[in-house]
Amino acid sequence: MAPLNRQVRLQSRPTGVPGPEHFLLAEAPTEEPGPGELLIRNEYLSVEPAMRGWVADLNNYSAPVPIGSVMRSLAAGEVVSSRHPDFQEGDKVIGWFGWQEYATVPAVAVTRKVTENDLPLSLYLGVLGINGVTAYFGLLDVGQPRPGDTVVVSTAAGAVGSVVGQIAKLMGCRTIGITGGVEKVQLCTDLYGFDQALDYKALGEDIASELAEACPNGINVYFDNVAGAITDRVLGHLAIGARVVICGTASIQSWTPVPTGPRVERILLTRRARAQGFVVFDYQHRHEEAIARLADWVRQGRLAFREDVQDGIESCLGAIAGLYRGENLGKRIIRLYSR
Amino acid sequence: MAPLNRQVRLQSRPTGVPGPEHFLLAEAPTEEPGPGELLIRNEYLSVEPAMRGWVADLNNYSAPVPIGSVMRSLAAGEVVSSRHPDFQEGDKVIGWFGWQEYATVPAVAVTRKVTENDLPLSLYLGVLGINGVTAYFGLLDVGQPRPGDTVVVSTAAGAVGSVVGQIAKLMGCRTIGITGGVEKVQLCTDLYGFDQALDYKALGEDIASELAEACPNGINVYFDNVAGAITDRVLGHLAIGARVVICGTASIQSWTPVPTGPRVERILLTRRARAQGFVVFDYQHRHEEAIARLADWVRQGRLAFREDVQDGIESCLGAIAGLYRGENLGKRIIRLYSR
Repeated sequence: MAPLNRQVRLQSRPTGVPGPEHFLLAEAPTEEPGPGELLIRNEYLSVEPAMRGWVADLNNYSAPVPIGSVMRSLAAGEVVSSRHPDFQEGDKVIGWFGWQEYATVPAVAVTRKVTENDLPLSLYLGVLGINGVTAYFGLLDVGQPRPGDTVVVSTAAGAVGSVVGQIAKLMGCRTIGITGGVEKVQLCTDLYGFDQALDYKALGEDIASELAEACPNGINVYFDNVAGAITDRVLGHLAIGARVVICGTASIQSWTPVPTGPRVERILLTRRARAQGFVVFDYQHRHEEAIARLADWVRQGRLAFREDVQDGIESCLGAIAGLYRGENLGKRIIRLYSR
Repeated sequence: MAPLNRQVRLQSRPTGVPGPEHFLLAEAPTEEPGPGELLIRNEYLSVEPAMRGWVADLNNYSAPVPIGSVMRSLAAGEVVSSRHPDFQEGDKVIGWFGWQEYATVPAVAVTRKVTENDLPLSLYLGVLGINGVTAYFGLLDVGQPRPGDTVVVSTAAGAVGSVVGQIAKLMGCRTIGITGGVEKVQLCTDLYGFDQALDYKALGEDIASELAEACPNGINVYFDNVAGAITDRVLGHLAIGARVVICGTASIQSWTPVPTGPRVERILLTRRARAQGFVVFDYQHRHEEAIARLADWVRQGRLAFREDVQDGIESCLGAIAGLYRGENLGKRIIRLYSR
């Protein structure tokens, strides 16, 4: 007898950050898998800042989630039944299973079968998942840090930023984190090993002079997750030949209409700097390379992480809005079943 | 007996585009060269949009021209007397000789001795000089065009833009030029071989829809000399993976204070596009490589050029302002002595 499936559906399209009012918690029967399909019981659901883009009615890097559909999400779960030869009952899998308790999906929805069993499954949604892989390729491929470089990271205590800072450190760079609040500043320096962490909330306008002092030779790499006012100030301190990795725009509440800010052409020109957008899905074919290396660093205790675990599918409703309020300390995940 | 030397000195520092009021035409005795120095009689003086930056009191890629000094400029001339073993009377040279009739300079001021005598000397200030070399490395190294790419160029009829368009065409790209006025549009399509040229003055707001029509698969390379409103519209049509070469910001009248415009982070992110500043002086060690190739294309009739020749040193005074008004058709040079 198929279990009842609770799911979070997109109910209306937000113009900015999606809140509980844009989602609906509903029940549906669990569907038996057809040929080539799997039935998965989700154990952890992921919450990403990028979800704002996935539900927006705006040119983006993926088609918008249709109204009425289960919210698109990566999840970690266990195969309950399989009608695909590559999978069998009990397999641990990561994939596009959505914000729901059970997912009946074609095998292609699986992004990874987790065969290592020495590390917690939830890590494959964070430090060993989309966030870690984003940090890895965004920093190394686009940011191209060199030993001795000064690397500045925004949302430095976040799921991506914290990994960026640690990899930069492993590459021999000086790392400056930008984050909000005393707790996160402490997390940046104590857990993630940033050489310095700046509290943009406490500093306000003074962040420019603090950055100047923290980066006397300029900033060689800026890994940016926020855009907006913080980024405007960071750009003023770019070194010649700097690389700016545009990974997210969390500080911008809405892109309709496009907000204005100081023009960047002159600073990019005079510093011969590069600003480049990065989307992790372009690196799908190289994910395993990143995950293997990140997992080794975790095993060696050289890559720290922290999770913000919310229990129960109903926690999904306000989870994205909470991220944008900065209320989480670490990668936000929703735990569906405790073991 | 040393001839009298007329020179154009920087008299005050403009905040925007320098006009005649910022310069002073003065006379000074010609100085005899000391050990290691040369006395050069200038034949042609160069006029560059970049001169606005050279005189500005602003972070730039070169030290500002001091008030009271001869205006910094590349020039083409002939060695009148030499106290350096590498040069002798009659040598044709290009270098930092300034806006003056005679220059007494150390040999390092020479950027190139012109040993080819089959091409006019003035070309080494334009298509075979800083403009051609800028186009060459800016397009090929930073823009990285691939055959079949759509390349959009602003100030397409200008000294740099016209060479960019032609090199892009030689590389197998489709080329769309943006320029102002019927005459320049015609120059772009008839002389420089752009597949299409858009008149931003005539089109106004419609340039966005015209660009969309001209670039149905998006823009792969945007070689930008203007920044501002035109660039804002071009960016809306970038293809995935596009490269934006920031070579100049001619449309921005002043950078103090920094003007605002639509934020570019989201467009760079979703298109995984790159915007990168380019300064030709970074490529000094590779200039000969570019000049050799450009000269061959000129000899083969595959690289067209046009000069806007003004006569007499007094023409310098309003020459930069005129460039920014777009009154020139082709590379602007000042001819000091007709032969």
